[in-house]
Amino acid sequence: MNVLIVFAHNEARSFNAAMKDLAVDTLRAQGHAVQVSDLYAMGFNPVASAADFTQRRNPDYLVYALEQRHGYETGTLAPDIAAELDKLQWAELIIFNFPIYWYGMPAILKGWVDRVFVSGLCYGGRRIYDRGGLAGKRAMLAISLGGQEHMFGPDAIHGELDLLLRPIQRGMLGYVGLTVLPPFIAYHVPYLSHDARQAILADYQAHLARLDQLEPLAFPRMDDYDEHLRPKPAP
Amino acid sequence: MNVLIVFAHNEARSFNAAMKDLAVDTLRAQGHAVQVSDLYAMGFNPVASAADFTQRRNPDYLVYALEQRHGYETGTLAPDIAAELDKLQWAELIIFNFPIYWYGMPAILKGWVDRVFVSGLCYGGRRIYDRGGLAGKRAMLAISLGGQEHMFGPDAIHGELDLLLRPIQRGMLGYVGLTVLPPFIAYHVPYLSHDARQAILADYQAHLARLDQLEPLAFPRMDDYDEHLRPKPAP
Repeated sequence: MNVLIVFAHNEARSFNAAMKDLAVDTLRAQGHAVQVSDLYAMGFNPVASAADFTQRRNPDYLVYALEQRHGYETGTLAPDIAAELDKLQWAELIIFNFPIYWYGMPAILKGWVDRVFVSGLCYGGRRIYDRGGLAGKRAMLAISLGGQEHMFGPDAIHGELDLLLRPIQRGMLGYVGLTVLPPFIAYHVPYLSHDARQAILADYQAHLARLDQLEPLAFPRMDDYDEHLRPKPAP
Repeated sequence: MNVLIVFAHNEARSFNAAMKDLAVDTLRAQGHAVQVSDLYAMGFNPVASAADFTQRRNPDYLVYALEQRHGYETGTLAPDIAAELDKLQWAELIIFNFPIYWYGMPAILKGWVDRVFVSGLCYGGRRIYDRGGLAGKRAMLAISLGGQEHMFGPDAIHGELDLLLRPIQRGMLGYVGLTVLPPFIAYHVPYLSHDARQAILADYQAHLARLDQLEPLAFPRMDDYDEHLRPKPAP
């Protein structure tokens, strides 16, 4: 299996970096091929702009998704985007490894999605969810949180974690057709002892060893919606 | 009233830009003072990194939130962050004006939150939600979407829009104590006629004229949670 780890942390010796290193070693030991996009180390540019297109469909007025489509079709996307797309097309599993910032991805990673999940290849028109352009590939979040487990849930202070992750897991990953495996979540990381962190790393290793046994998340299926994307009446 | 508009769009003549210009004109005509942070025009850097601190509490190992707190307390945050913090402290209403990218903020704006909502000033420990550092100020989203209104809802293809916006409205804005007004949402923008867009702008102007009549969103209240942030038993 080909695995791409998209990694975003601004401290090279962080717990997230230890998770990334562990995943590389564990997956390679299982016989898989692994590439890492270490966004901070690469100095990845997260800002979606006109500079992303070396040739414009419409040089006078930027509609970002339309230029993505044109750039993908004509092979004129900026080189840093094209390089990430090569890795994305090569990968059969994509792991997104990052600390939650404000209930979402750090901006450097959000911008990777903004720029690399290009219209034309990854989605377009009704090619979304199970008909998305990346259908057949799998994805998984491997994240750290400052909060503790009891702070998430229907009556908990921060609400349901699956709903907080919905824009990412459904709105980004599911939307482009990826089969999304249950996330690995490391709670309370900044406050843990060395031993407690080692225990979480052991849990992560076990999670990586049983990926094929994990039940993917459920998302909308396009057969259940009509041509206007309205739900079809129940049969 | 002092109003800060944080604006993020990569096309200067976009519909979002028209919304921003309309808000500036409308609010000034009402007698308010308005500042705009036009993130693309400013070339705003959205990447949270060690470069954000001109003096480090711990130069050997970066814990971003701890350095934010130190940088705020010692006045040693990077100048671009300090400039945005000045506007944030000046403002009584903050409008976030942007197109939804992947059910969230464009990375350039997500990074504004990552870097400018600093620990120490905006939150810290149990100073969150109604005890957050920005309590007493108001905030509002003014956003555009590609989707149509019928694509959002409990059984709709993209799910409930309020849940998709929860990480932003509750997880970012509510978390730091902001009173969050109902969002203004412009649907289906890329596909609309000029006349339809003008009608939406008129609706936005009406929304801006009745801000004081809008019922804010409800978020957790810290009195309902104990010192471990567990819900207190019902009285």
